[in-house]
Amino acid sequence: MIKVGVIGATGYTGLELIRLLVHHPQVNLCFATSKSRAGERLPAVFPSAPDVPLIDPAEAPLKDTQAVFLCLPHAESAQVAVQALDAGVRVVDLSADFRLRDAKTYQKWYGVEHPAPELLQEAVYGLTEAVRADLPAARLVANPGCYPTSVLLALKPLLDENAIHSTVIVDSKSGVSGAGRKPKQTTHFVEVDGNLSPYNVGRAHRHLPEMEQAVAWWTDDAPALIFSPHLVPAPRGLLSTIYVHLDSSWDEKKVRQLYDRIYGNEAFIHVLSQGEAATYAHVNHTNRCAIGLTMTEGVLILTSAIDNLIKGASGQAVQNMNAMFGIDETAGLPG
Amino acid sequence: MIKVGVIGATGYTGLELIRLLVHHPQVNLCFATSKSRAGERLPAVFPSAPDVPLIDPAEAPLKDTQAVFLCLPHAESAQVAVQALDAGVRVVDLSADFRLRDAKTYQKWYGVEHPAPELLQEAVYGLTEAVRADLPAARLVANPGCYPTSVLLALKPLLDENAIHSTVIVDSKSGVSGAGRKPKQTTHFVEVDGNLSPYNVGRAHRHLPEMEQAVAWWTDDAPALIFSPHLVPAPRGLLSTIYVHLDSSWDEKKVRQLYDRIYGNEAFIHVLSQGEAATYAHVNHTNRCAIGLTMTEGVLILTSAIDNLIKGASGQAVQNMNAMFGIDETAGLPG
Amino acid sequence: MIKVGVIGATGYTGLELIRLLVHHPQVNLCFATSKSRAGERLPAVFPSAPDVPLIDPAEAPLKDTQAVFLCLPHAESAQVAVQALDAGVRVVDLSADFRLRDAKTYQKWYGVEHPAPELLQEAVYGLTEAVRADLPAARLVANPGCYPTSVLLALKPLLDENAIHSTVIVDSKSGVSGAGRKPKQTTHFVEVDGNLSPYNVGRAHRHLPEMEQAVAWWTDDAPALIFSPHLVPAPRGLLSTIYVHLDSSWDEKKVRQLYDRIYGNEAFIHVLSQGEAATYAHVNHTNRCAIGLTMTEGVLILTSAIDNLIKGASGQAVQNMNAMFGIDETAGLPG
Amino acid sequence: MIKVGVIGATGYTGLELIRLLVHHPQVNLCFATSKSRAGERLPAVFPSAPDVPLIDPAEAPLKDTQAVFLCLPHAESAQVAVQALDAGVRVVDLSADFRLRDAKTYQKWYGVEHPAPELLQEAVYGLTEAVRADLPAARLVANPGCYPTSVLLALKPLLDENAIHSTVIVDSKSGVSGAGRKPKQTTHFVEVDGNLSPYNVGRAHRHLPEMEQAVAWWTDDAPALIFSPHLVPAPRGLLSTIYVHLDSSWDEKKVRQLYDRIYGNEAFIHVLSQGEAATYAHVNHTNRCAIGLTMTEGVLILTSAIDNLIKGASGQAVQNMNAMFGIDETAGLPG
Repeated sequence: MIKVGVIGATGYTGLELIRLLVHHPQVNLCFATSKSRAGERLPAVFPSAPDVPLIDPAEAPLKDTQAVFLCLPHAESAQVAVQALDAGVRVVDLSADFRLRDAKTYQKWYGVEHPAPELLQEAVYGLTEAVRADLPAARLVANPGCYPTSVLLALKPLLDENAIHSTVIVDSKSGVSGAGRKPKQTTHFVEVDGNLSPYNVGRAHRHLPEMEQAVAWWTDDAPALIFSPHLVPAPRGLLSTIYVHLDSSWDEKKVRQLYDRIYGNEAFIHVLSQGEAATYAHVNHTNRCAIGLTMTEGVLILTSAIDNLIKGASGQAVQNMNAMFGIDETAGLPG
Repeated sequence: MIKVGVIGATGYTGLELIRLLVHHPQVNLCFATSKSRAGERLPAVFPSAPDVPLIDPAEAPLKDTQAVFLCLPHAESAQVAVQALDAGVRVVDLSADFRLRDAKTYQKWYGVEHPAPELLQEAVYGLTEAVRADLPAARLVANPGCYPTSVLLALKPLLDENAIHSTVIVDSKSGVSGAGRKPKQTTHFVEVDGNLSPYNVGRAHRHLPEMEQAVAWWTDDAPALIFSPHLVPAPRGLLSTIYVHLDSSWDEKKVRQLYDRIYGNEAFIHVLSQGEAATYAHVNHTNRCAIGLTMTEGVLILTSAIDNLIKGASGQAVQNMNAMFGIDETAGLPG
Repeated sequence: MIKVGVIGATGYTGLELIRLLVHHPQVNLCFATSKSRAGERLPAVFPSAPDVPLIDPAEAPLKDTQAVFLCLPHAESAQVAVQALDAGVRVVDLSADFRLRDAKTYQKWYGVEHPAPELLQEAVYGLTEAVRADLPAARLVANPGCYPTSVLLALKPLLDENAIHSTVIVDSKSGVSGAGRKPKQTTHFVEVDGNLSPYNVGRAHRHLPEMEQAVAWWTDDAPALIFSPHLVPAPRGLLSTIYVHLDSSWDEKKVRQLYDRIYGNEAFIHVLSQGEAATYAHVNHTNRCAIGLTMTEGVLILTSAIDNLIKGASGQAVQNMNAMFGIDETAGLPG
Repeated sequence: MIKVGVIGATGYTGLELIRLLVHHPQVNLCFATSKSRAGERLPAVFPSAPDVPLIDPAEAPLKDTQAVFLCLPHAESAQVAVQALDAGVRVVDLSADFRLRDAKTYQKWYGVEHPAPELLQEAVYGLTEAVRADLPAARLVANPGCYPTSVLLALKPLLDENAIHSTVIVDSKSGVSGAGRKPKQTTHFVEVDGNLSPYNVGRAHRHLPEMEQAVAWWTDDAPALIFSPHLVPAPRGLLSTIYVHLDSSWDEKKVRQLYDRIYGNEAFIHVLSQGEAATYAHVNHTNRCAIGLTMTEGVLILTSAIDNLIKGASGQAVQNMNAMFGIDETAGLPG
């Protein structure tokens, strides 16, 4: 049994993570922390949650665990990561703190100096299907953002082929849990219900540099992304509709062959059949990424759907942990 | 043209009120105030709102108006009411401040000493259909709460007949705008969507004493109420399902005759036909109250629906203003 | 391993049942049938469903199983039950066909002659917590309706004490999946969203005789029920708010002691603490029934919540199967 | 007063149209028809609808009206249009029958031979802002589809400038009323709620030829469109996010100047300020089209929102009627 702890249990990713971990056949959840709700039990926060006690982070028995998951605000997370690593505990960080390799880029987008720049090169960017070879040795895994997970899994086969040479249009639609659990005007039920809102359109969302960083790793002459996230009146789910110009050597059949070859054996990646587009209904409450492919007029239209809280956060975090500890990557995860 | 102002324009009732007033054929909206958004225009707060400037309440030209509507938190509202009355301006108060006639009861339920107890006896409790004779002379109208509006309109005909002698069960279901616009954990989209929550069950909600006060005005040997409000994952609408024991002299036909007689000429009260129950769809975006009647096993089941923001707040406020100024009670109101 | 089949896999209860069965550690799902979709696989109907083939019911290898679950329309279900029993297969019927013990009552409420009245006395009414002693020997279990499950679990402790002597008010609120998957005007998204609708108010819903039948089993001088179901704009969840007059020998403390005593060891029944009311959020995606208790003015207010598809249908069906085969009653069920 | 009739009153566009017409200060609604509900009144279909009787279409007194609105299925609509025109009545057709000028294209996309090809050249494609000069003389107006309205209003200023030379990406998101009122599996509440679904992705939706036809009218060297509609869990509203490559002579400021110049005096077109994107909340329950503009990396991102039932159907139909009869184009329309 892998002994783990969760730091920051009372947000949506913390809750989802704990649900996965308590049912994971090879995990022993040693503790879950919350600053604001320490002393209570998790069902006091989420009535149907597993009955786990919440302790103060200062009292977390880090040394009794082999790994901790950090579900904390950015900047705060990196500091706890340092403590955990110092205590010899492996870290899966669900915040943005270790996703960008460049401290200046981090500062530009997150507005604070990076608290632990010395760790940036070591951190593994945990898009599991892309980096699983690096995970068994990793001390520190930066769990990808929800939007980047949907986009990068959809684009990687083509990027690896150096098939993309012009600006990629990414039009994404996310459920509201992606905005976090802290009440804001923009997440008030009356403001969201019946509405559909683009936000941070173009090149203004923090997930843009994270996506472009990975694109640049994987391809020569990396294309720019245009990224338009939209808030959908649904609690969970994330769909990216992606438009890629391909040259005339590509048709839908050839694209489909590529994706079938790359992803045919992936447990969690479902390449949909011809004419089928990915929806939230393909993936919600699972660790899947469903990918639909349509090509017309030289443009490949990818629909890539994930559950933002599972494959886009806590599920992928568990998948990374599974790979780090050398157990079946699918263990404890809803397929 | 009646010259009016709105104090507190950036909540849901303020917005709805301004929508009604700018289209009202006999009203001139002179100003709308907001502390937090002064200097902006209303569409900056609600994109589809009428293009009305927001001014600081301190700069409101009270004296240029004949009436003001107060859409303010309780306790704050009463203080502004005093100022307006002193300036010779009539007041329709949408807060709870002048609904209860007894200052001690107010203090018990609202947790603060009443700021203007000397006005409590003068204030008219503005359930329009019940008090329209008093409105032309009124300086100060206390606009009823949303739950009481749905319940009291449904019960009044029977109370006037002294037909109710035992505890009345009121099971109410409200859309989320009834909880106000300030973001709270309980109004976060992800917490509300897909959920249905009773709250303040029994005799714990502030609208209980307001309802029992009116019941005691209208009937001898006033029955107690049991009141269970529920939060519904919908932005607006309010339904009260009410259970009343009647003695054997009553059957559904006799009840129906009573309601048809009392409400047959009311523009906004729709007594539904046999077998039809009231729903949000009967009333949303209108100033209606729809009332369904079913009797079985000696129990009358009333379903009483209103739009909580219109008949339950801003629409009834306009209806009261219409009656105060002696114009057609339906003017400017969606039937 | 218990070998089972599902007859009628493409409705909401069929889907939920199959999700539970494929993850059940002691069950082997041998087949799932569908008349209209035979030859396809379940994900063609529900994209995230387990990848189970759908066969024609005529080809179902009944004899290879020990039990079948029937998720069929009423009247059709009873006929298949006869075939299964004749083949020596035990039956858990999720339709209404074997819930009422009296064939005339069945005909009155369901509009058809009962297809197998000879089985009515044998069928066990499978409210698991109430009948578990009878399940190991049962050949045929009638899985209770969703509304009755929420109401009867809430009332049974008091009925067993003969504490209820007057009409009980049941005000229930159900998510839309309770209305089935067949598209109807009343389940169209645009008609439901933002709406809240009572229907079959009073004594007009088919679940009324089912509830009153059980009430009469359990108490002397059985009280009548008044039952008002409401349709809620949510996909799943069911809450019954129940009003019971108790004599002066009862107070909330004594009621609470009773419920704690009766349900303290039940895995799936959660008696909530003082001041807490049951919501969909307590139970959705679990096999729980959450019960809140509040007493005031001589009236006990019970809030009883279940997931209509799990404890109100497929989860309880699995719980019944577990008890029938003598395995842990909680096996394979989300707690 | 303009005397009008509505043929087909019981769908969502019919209802919305009647709501507008009964409040229109210069219109007299003479009749509303329904085949299936003739003899009933409109509130029997939609509880809060205006109290208008429904008559059989065969009894519609066409000759007493100056114009009729057709809210009928395609192919059926054209036949009624012929009758109305023969009776000397002007027609605003909300179906697709007269949108495409080429009968073969119509047959290809709608699967039936066109019932009245002789009228195709005469019909005015009623995107009001683009064709208002032609409306006073028009006998037959083809009201545009909802998607085309949002897209064409957004693109027209650039097309008129011949500024678009490469494939345009249109990613649209529509509320469910756009799918009509007839219950289908895809509009069942449980299937839609919490889901987000692309459909007819690429070049497969019937509104594509309608859009490309207009694009070809307005620009040389007309670009192709890629069109991906998505179904959003909301009852109404339509947003198109449109991606256009512009050459280096264009920047956001120049684009904005163009749109301000073209649309600055339009009552219903709101060009949003810098940094603001269009949402459903800008337009629902109004006849507005809100357009947001963002330019980055040589790509102009347009967000164009309408209420699909108003500006996308019934509101634009009334706007067209206003222009046809030479009255104020905004009469009777919510701004």
